Amino acid sequence: MRAPEVQKTKAATRSVELISLLQSGYGRRTDTVAVEEPLEIRLARADETGPGRAISITMRTPGHDAELAAGFLYGENIISGRDDVAIVRSCGPSGNVLRVEVKPHVALDLARLERNFYTSSSCGVCGKASIDAVMSGAPVRQIPVEGRVEASVLGGLPRQLRAGQAVFASTGGLHAVGLFDLSGELLAVHEDVGRHNAFDKLIGARFLAAALPLNDSLVLLSGRASFELIQKAMMAGVPLVAAIGAPSSLAIELAEAAGMTLVAFLRENTFNVYTHPERLLGGAE
Amino acid sequence: MRAPEVQKTKAATRSVELISLLQSGYGRRTDTVAVEEPLEIRLARADETGPGRAISITMRTPGHDAELAAGFLYGENIISGRDDVAIVRSCGPSGNVLRVEVKPHVALDLARLERNFYTSSSCGVCGKASIDAVMSGAPVRQIPVEGRVEASVLGGLPRQLRAGQAVFASTGGLHAVGLFDLSGELLAVHEDVGRHNAFDKLIGARFLAAALPLNDSLVLLSGRASFELIQKAMMAGVPLVAAIGAPSSLAIELAEAAGMTLVAFLRENTFNVYTHPERLLGGAE
Repeated sequence: MRAPEVQKTKAATRSVELISLLQSGYGRRTDTVAVEEPLEIRLARADETGPGRAISITMRTPGHDAELAAGFLYGENIISGRDDVAIVRSCGPSGNVLRVEVKPHVALDLARLERNFYTSSSCGVCGKASIDAVMSGAPVRQIPVEGRVEASVLGGLPRQLRAGQAVFASTGGLHAVGLFDLSGELLAVHEDVGRHNAFDKLIGARFLAAALPLNDSLVLLSGRASFELIQKAMMAGVPLVAAIGAPSSLAIELAEAAGMTLVAFLRENTFNVYTHPERLLGGAE
Repeated sequence: MRAPEVQKTKAATRSVELISLLQSGYGRRTDTVAVEEPLEIRLARADETGPGRAISITMRTPGHDAELAAGFLYGENIISGRDDVAIVRSCGPSGNVLRVEVKPHVALDLARLERNFYTSSSCGVCGKASIDAVMSGAPVRQIPVEGRVEASVLGGLPRQLRAGQAVFASTGGLHAVGLFDLSGELLAVHEDVGRHNAFDKLIGARFLAAALPLNDSLVLLSGRASFELIQKAMMAGVPLVAAIGAPSSLAIELAEAAGMTLVAFLRENTFNVYTHPERLLGGAE
């Protein structure tokens, strides 16, 4: 098994000139913004030449692109383990095309993928050829019941996530996803202009380290909990997802069905539990 | 020209049971969450029978679905004027499938659409078969220079937007896009779990009223300004886009190229202008 190729690192931030209105009047200054560029993910067989098949284009913040691609393909159930991937390589001069080469044993039905992907639209609801597929195409995975969390741990997570957001600190403009162990210790933070990408990068990093599923971890989302973020968490086996923002109806329904504990509106001293409170120790059950 | 069919209105919010941790301890209560359900948009010729072609599936908050479909198809350059659309009708019992029937004069190259869509991925970067297409497939439209805005108007917009967010008020969980005239009077607010959907609904409502382009309007985004939101604004001819959140690098680049004024980090007394300050009267130019 070869490790992913080292990629030339593209900058995640960029300086821009702007005019700022403050109490003191207008002033010209330079500030830092998050870079947003397209990433095309191509899928190919390691034993074949040719360009492979374009599977996805996502607008992302450069950095951890191999992890993003691996996490995306894992979440879409196209690859299921580290040993499925031969190599991830950057194609062309732009740094915005990645080719994921899978080993010969992986069953790739490219015609099926094409059918599944061509109707895709917004926000990660990709690979779903119909509404039925969105709802039930990937069967609901049950999260193991073990993996309990002291409720008192949750209040400290947002502060840790924010402290780990290096790019947000300079740009004020990125979504983040944090991975913690069940005692609330921060293990990893990933940031991106797209919240789905941030989560894909986090899961992809664990995928490439052959460290999935995440049954002994909890995840904090910097924003809202939507269906597809819960779906990604479910695929990775995360027993507890906490969000600083609000949950959607479908996120709650999927968490309930998957046996996942869903916490939202998480603040230092308050939070709401929407599903499976039995996993929280110290009062909520 | 027939008006869109009246749709059965699905609820935009839903009650859920939850456990809340407050200073006083745990309590069970009922709260309201934003509904998230898939919407499949199908495209068909009015003079043909058959199921049409599935063009997009997006996770949206029900309501203004015909507007969402029209705005999406307009933003993708598939329909260009009200007279292109014969009827928008709901299909099937779920209320989650819309069929947009276009008139015979509309050139629909479904094979091209399929090629363009099958690689789609996340967050509205749909219909782009390659990175080149993301960046240049739809040519940059130039926004007319006229349409100036008093800088002092901007500070009052966020408060007006928030006041118009009926669903956010009950759920704390929706993106919003507000349409204002150039004097800062609120014309419309649309909300959705997906920010692209909120903008598509706003543009689609104007499309169905044959009231595009929006050269005499400005738009306020409740969140961040990303490339694709600026692209939608450009397609609709919006001369000034303001965001409460941060802009991305590519959003700034596209706004610059399109002649659009881009304001971000908008607060009551402060904001940043990233492109084309000449449209702001009262100091920023």
